[in-house]
Amino acid sequence: MDTLRVNGPRLCQSLAAMARFGATLKGGVRRLTLTGVDGAARDQFVAWARAAGLEVRVDGIGNIFCRRAGTDPDALPVGIGSHLDSQPSGGKYDGAYGVMAGLEVVRSLNDAGITTRAPLEIISWTNEEGSRFTPVMMGSGVAAGVFTLEHCLAQRDADGATVGEALRAIGYAGDAPAPRLGAYFEAHIEQGPILEAERKTIGVVQGALGQRWFDVVVTGQDAHAGPTPMASRQDALIGASRLVLEVNRIARSHPDEARGTVGALQVVPNSRNVVPGEVRLSVDLRSATDATLRAMVAALTACARVIETECRVAIAMQEVVYFPPSAFDRDLVGAVRAAAQALGFSHRDLVSGAGHDAVYVARVAPTAMIFIPCEGGISHNELESATPEDLEAGCNVLLQAALARAGVAQTQEALT
Amino acid sequence: MDTLRVNGPRLCQSLAAMARFGATLKGGVRRLTLTGVDGAARDQFVAWARAAGLEVRVDGIGNIFCRRAGTDPDALPVGIGSHLDSQPSGGKYDGAYGVMAGLEVVRSLNDAGITTRAPLEIISWTNEEGSRFTPVMMGSGVAAGVFTLEHCLAQRDADGATVGEALRAIGYAGDAPAPRLGAYFEAHIEQGPILEAERKTIGVVQGALGQRWFDVVVTGQDAHAGPTPMASRQDALIGASRLVLEVNRIARSHPDEARGTVGALQVVPNSRNVVPGEVRLSVDLRSATDATLRAMVAALTACARVIETECRVAIAMQEVVYFPPSAFDRDLVGAVRAAAQALGFSHRDLVSGAGHDAVYVARVAPTAMIFIPCEGGISHNELESATPEDLEAGCNVLLQAALARAGVAQTQEALT
Repeated sequence: MDTLRVNGPRLCQSLAAMARFGATLKGGVRRLTLTGVDGAARDQFVAWARAAGLEVRVDGIGNIFCRRAGTDPDALPVGIGSHLDSQPSGGKYDGAYGVMAGLEVVRSLNDAGITTRAPLEIISWTNEEGSRFTPVMMGSGVAAGVFTLEHCLAQRDADGATVGEALRAIGYAGDAPAPRLGAYFEAHIEQGPILEAERKTIGVVQGALGQRWFDVVVTGQDAHAGPTPMASRQDALIGASRLVLEVNRIARSHPDEARGTVGALQVVPNSRNVVPGEVRLSVDLRSATDATLRAMVAALTACARVIETECRVAIAMQEVVYFPPSAFDRDLVGAVRAAAQALGFSHRDLVSGAGHDAVYVARVAPTAMIFIPCEGGISHNELESATPEDLEAGCNVLLQAALARAGVAQTQEALT
Repeated sequence: MDTLRVNGPRLCQSLAAMARFGATLKGGVRRLTLTGVDGAARDQFVAWARAAGLEVRVDGIGNIFCRRAGTDPDALPVGIGSHLDSQPSGGKYDGAYGVMAGLEVVRSLNDAGITTRAPLEIISWTNEEGSRFTPVMMGSGVAAGVFTLEHCLAQRDADGATVGEALRAIGYAGDAPAPRLGAYFEAHIEQGPILEAERKTIGVVQGALGQRWFDVVVTGQDAHAGPTPMASRQDALIGASRLVLEVNRIARSHPDEARGTVGALQVVPNSRNVVPGEVRLSVDLRSATDATLRAMVAALTACARVIETECRVAIAMQEVVYFPPSAFDRDLVGAVRAAAQALGFSHRDLVSGAGHDAVYVARVAPTAMIFIPCEGGISHNELESATPEDLEAGCNVLLQAALARAGVAQTQEALT
């Protein structure tokens, strides 16, 4: 089995064919979850899965499970998957790579006439991105028992359509149960710059950073920019700008995988000649440990109190999201590392800074992830790019790690 | 004449009646220029002017001139005015006070049977605010030869309607020439906190701050907030936040009537978990001297270069507006100060931080302004407020200063 390899060109062809669903002029993908174009992409995936001999079922939230039977009727399946939905201006690889890599693993096993002991389950999770419906990672979250099905089916998009309606409209309101998994592997582009910068082919993902998100409102007082002397002002944007810089400073003061980002900021009234009376902004803090997250929040809160006094503004911070730091399964992470090693790929351990379906699946099944480099670390962007060599390498690691977990029962050669 | 006073309660009644045109639930005014409600307010003003015996003409840009004849056929008229249009969420006093004060001056002279040597011209200028159509101070700008009539008539609002169409729709596309003025007085709320803070009743306005406005684009690189280490980022919002603080610092380092404001700021893509790749912001610098404006721009440009290097972003600054500092007429300013003094009102010299119709009129006629306090310095806001006492005081100063300039020819008492 050690010499078995996936068909890299076929994998790239699958990715290219999938990228035509929702293709954008700039070479990216706009495939919002449960839209018509997502339905068409799902139909293509299902057709390919059936052609590869897989048994396809759909659960209540529209997750697609494609089973390749094993020889051991009692063995729990080894899941391989990711998601097919994209950001509004997304790329060809975020999500689709993990699903197409799972399909390529199956096709390669078919080509080689290999049957595994445990079944394989190639999975496409519904609505990982959360761009049309919240919460993000909806399908894996329902499967992992994080969200109830009823809650998610009732969520509405900006036009008022519910998830349930959207699922029915594209024919993916299923009723199959989500299978219990014995293991779960997800291959994904890194969405960051580390592998490329360090010229490593494989990221062996240890787990995911914890996240604490805040909505912050800085309140000052509107004033006419002309007649209001500097000393009289209560400029909310001055307070907000100081807070933005503090978020950055605090994250940098915890260099070990700590992140701090203000990604969204709105000024009120946002008029050229009015001193801003209010600024609303988001704060996204991430770290591998809850202790660091707590320290970052405490530091930010203390800074906010100083800014309130010095800038004569009020700062209200409300926590809106908390994802605890998550650690993947030691054995499965070891299988990924061993596969990369055996295949001769340069590799390094990484912690995922982003959320992935794997983070929820890890709550109910042993889980690991495989990262490959993406150009410039760019993702959630139409320019997202990965090399054929890296795509193939990650898929070979996936194949070997999954085989190590599922076990090889028999090969065609052995039978003939 | 020194004992002549305006009728304060009548002035306040006029202001209250005018504030019903476009009244908002929060007690402010929404009277965008050349809308139906502006037309109704104009009709009311014209009716009052005619009832006071004034001869009403409208020029090509819709400025309303209401003449009270003098005894000297060769004397140029003394203009008194301001504007009736408001900000989208404006107050009852910004602009309307100057027009209603002019009307009250005329009514008081009528009551006292006083005829002036030079005619008086009570003026309502079109579109001072610039909220619906740009440029701001359109009517006074046309009258002063800053803009051509044709250019202004062709300007469009957000719905595509032109100024010319809007003028015709409300019946204010006139053809009278704008009169040449021998002097111009404008009474206005301060729109800043200085008079209130120093408990002065009258601001003797020396002129207006010069203004230099810039559009700034800070360009970094979008990146996923999770997987992108802090050291790898090119966060446009970090660069922008530093620039916001530098604008503030630079203005404070020139304490003598220097102002620096970032009032508008947009983040792209403005998503909670994306490191901002671009920030667009406005910079508004003001000072009483061009030398200080130049020094502020030089300091800001130097800061931008440092920020570019330290934050790995690019900063493009484009100057979009320049109003030179303007000085009002020494004799007319003296007349205002003398009137305040003679009436026993506390007063101080001020420089206007905002633009006013008077700034354009000053290019073609001797001009002065009278400021009165407004509560909390708040303006361009529905909460705008001024006391009856201050409104009356400013109007009495206006009356005396205008009489000093126009000259008293005869009184009813003298005739009887």
